[in-house]
Amino acid sequence: MARVIVDVMLKPEILDPQGQAIVGACQRLGFSGVSHVRQGKRFEVDVEGEVDDAKLADVRRLAETLLANPVIEDFEVHVE
Amino acid sequence: MARVIVDVMLKPEILDPQGQAIVGACQRLGFSGVSHVRQGKRFEVDVEGEVDDAKLADVRRLAETLLANPVIEDFEVHVE
Repeated sequence: MARVIVDVMLKPEILDPQGQAIVGACQRLGFSGVSHVRQGKRFEVDVEGEVDDAKLADVRRLAETLLANPVIEDFEVHVE
Repeated sequence: MARVIVDVMLKPEILDPQGQAIVGACQRLGFSGVSHVRQGKRFEVDVEGEVDDAKLADVRRLAETLLANPVIEDFEVHVE
């Protein structure tokens, strides 16, 4: 059993109103020095057996088709 | 400018229906070997200046009060 992490974030050119709301809340709550926040998703995918290149390619295909919307989101796959 | 990452995941004892739905979809789509998925949130927090221990403590406090719900979620803070 191995754990593969898929991080999905909005592409830089896509507006992120949730992130903007967090920056606003930081200022109201007195956390100074926070200039920018982006909110994304993190998936912990447990796969059976050892993670080899084929398994990683499978998870990448899974991220592309199921976990991320490639039109507006970028994703990164890495082994924990 | 430095980037601090805050990963927020449901505590292990909290049910994650989204993750379960993803496992079901994996099976329907033919991605075999995926045994378990948990979905969480990932925040990219850009802070001004260098990241020192005080800044990290600030971000940790921010995560506790604003980004995560400590009753049902765990979070991890690390510098990218």
